[in-house]
Amino acid sequence: MLRSIDRVYMREALALADRGRCTTWPNPRVGALVVSGGRVVGRGFHRRAGESHAEIHALQAAGGFARGATLYVTLEPCSSHGRTGPCTEAVLAAGVRRVVMALVDPDPRHQGRAVAMLRDHGVEVDVGCMEPEARAMNAPFLMRVERGRPLITAKQGMSADARVAYSREAPGWFTGPEARRDTHRLRGEHPLIITGIGTVLADDPVLTVRDSPLIGHAPVRLVIDSHARLPLDARILASDPLGGPVFVGCLERAPLERVEALQERGVTVIRSPENGQGRVDLADLSDQLGRHWTFNAAWLECGPALMGAFLDAHLIDGWVAYLAPCLVGGAVALPALLGQGASGGECAPKLTRVRWLPMGRDLRLTADVLY
Amino acid sequence: MLRSIDRVYMREALALADRGRCTTWPNPRVGALVVSGGRVVGRGFHRRAGESHAEIHALQAAGGFARGATLYVTLEPCSSHGRTGPCTEAVLAAGVRRVVMALVDPDPRHQGRAVAMLRDHGVEVDVGCMEPEARAMNAPFLMRVERGRPLITAKQGMSADARVAYSREAPGWFTGPEARRDTHRLRGEHPLIITGIGTVLADDPVLTVRDSPLIGHAPVRLVIDSHARLPLDARILASDPLGGPVFVGCLERAPLERVEALQERGVTVIRSPENGQGRVDLADLSDQLGRHWTFNAAWLECGPALMGAFLDAHLIDGWVAYLAPCLVGGAVALPALLGQGASGGECAPKLTRVRWLPMGRDLRLTADVLY
Repeated sequence: MLRSIDRVYMREALALADRGRCTTWPNPRVGALVVSGGRVVGRGFHRRAGESHAEIHALQAAGGFARGATLYVTLEPCSSHGRTGPCTEAVLAAGVRRVVMALVDPDPRHQGRAVAMLRDHGVEVDVGCMEPEARAMNAPFLMRVERGRPLITAKQGMSADARVAYSREAPGWFTGPEARRDTHRLRGEHPLIITGIGTVLADDPVLTVRDSPLIGHAPVRLVIDSHARLPLDARILASDPLGGPVFVGCLERAPLERVEALQERGVTVIRSPENGQGRVDLADLSDQLGRHWTFNAAWLECGPALMGAFLDAHLIDGWVAYLAPCLVGGAVALPALLGQGASGGECAPKLTRVRWLPMGRDLRLTADVLY
Repeated sequence: MLRSIDRVYMREALALADRGRCTTWPNPRVGALVVSGGRVVGRGFHRRAGESHAEIHALQAAGGFARGATLYVTLEPCSSHGRTGPCTEAVLAAGVRRVVMALVDPDPRHQGRAVAMLRDHGVEVDVGCMEPEARAMNAPFLMRVERGRPLITAKQGMSADARVAYSREAPGWFTGPEARRDTHRLRGEHPLIITGIGTVLADDPVLTVRDSPLIGHAPVRLVIDSHARLPLDARILASDPLGGPVFVGCLERAPLERVEALQERGVTVIRSPENGQGRVDLADLSDQLGRHWTFNAAWLECGPALMGAFLDAHLIDGWVAYLAPCLVGGAVALPALLGQGASGGECAPKLTRVRWLPMGRDLRLTADVLY
């Protein structure tokens, strides 16, 4: 049975887990704490895929003190031999008397297996301590494991009346240096940046992480480009020490010579079926990005047409908007979101957990999107 | 010469002036304080046009203590016989030794006249104490006197991506009850509400002040209606105990029988020349509203086309936007602002003093507009 003191230790385990932010991908963030006689005798967190899991670090730190102790861990320990051996055996070998978990393994193939194994060996197991907090922290990992696609956060820089360009030909630059810096920081927290061929042809961005404490972290850059039109001299393809690998998402029927030319330049090409309007089926592409490429999260920076298509497909989970202090108006300037759009209140995506933060002269709005 | 203690007393005079909020129109808000030997011996503020000015109230309260005292007043006293007699003579008669003013009279016909009269009679006069604060408090009055038109504040309720309707045919209702209540409160602080015939034909609003502590205060309701199409059975024309007078702003060449029918229903019709696109020239109309009708301030609630036209004409001074927590997108939903719009960063109206306040589930943005 869970006790109130369990939340105190689990909160510390969650704080430890958060130290793996941006580096554990495709693994979840996990933290662990070994407590014996009211004293914390071991701490650990998972830092990087391929390295030890949080429980192993914590048990090693605890040494002999682990015998008879309680282990707090933010996620059910693994029970199968992965790259680092099953943690459940290590827990049993250490002689832990009780294990408190925030979440069971969300993967249906492993779900509850460690819980059962531990109980079979007489270990007391309690599940669900601070589960909402643990779910929130690992929302990207859970999205991939439970729904097979990355958690997608859309970013837009806009005027206060939500225009993102003065016209199709004149892309606006509305936001200030603080917003730009914040964008680079948030880009760097994602393993994958998605943009569209329209943005590449109009702005020729490099989409690297600059001007950020996470500099050197190089997310994969994916261009959604139905007909594989990405020019070979696009800046995104140029050699750049900060540039991560480039992916192109195109149609199965994209011209083969274009696809091969891109592959020769080192581009990874992902093919998807048509969505019925001659464009890449975004649900299929997202599925491949989650199931095959194991991306937990993606950062979407693109024009209003592709952004609207993602929204129409219910594929945007988070929205980050930088509102610049100006008004544009008119019938020519591009709105933040195009696509099909909502025809009434019932079908308009809802925003929850709306937060705002002044950022230089701009205002950043952040929200979760619900459908 | 101004002393630091003067700001202390002037701040109280400004606070007194603010008690006339919403009721002094078309007069400014004015507060006055009589200080003798370090003690406040009289306080006054202007409550309503036609009633005594602030100085008179303060001098009456001070009685004999006014002799040799200092008078703090937020605006230069009047020097000509208006409805209540010139205050300058009363100041001299009371034997005040020193007068500290925040602002000189902005009306070029009176500017500095009281200052000169007082000095001629040996009274020490200091001008400019807390002038910026005094200007901000009377921004609507100053707009009318200095620029001949009311200060116009535009209100919009919108989705987070700045759409105000799902389509031309389906006006959206995005914001919640708290935003609606706030709108009624702000409507009530204005002597004039402006809307367009498009909004009247689509929504048939009454534009009264309901659900507000200022209930009973009935602003004039102006419909901008180039061709005098306002239907005689529009709800805005129905008898309503909360409804203020109805004005219609139309073209000089609007059909005479329509104009006469409206006038028979008690509507005041203001005629303006064409703006070159077959619509009412908004600059001319605003000028008439300020110079002839002495409106200090107007509250603009209308559709995106008229709102955009006001912005194009540089006639929007304040912007109040209620952002609802939803996204609409698409090519059919109406954006907040249409009109001509800005074609680049140089010509886009800027927002300053951007403020935000959560309002139920919505977020209210408020800003001043600069051109």
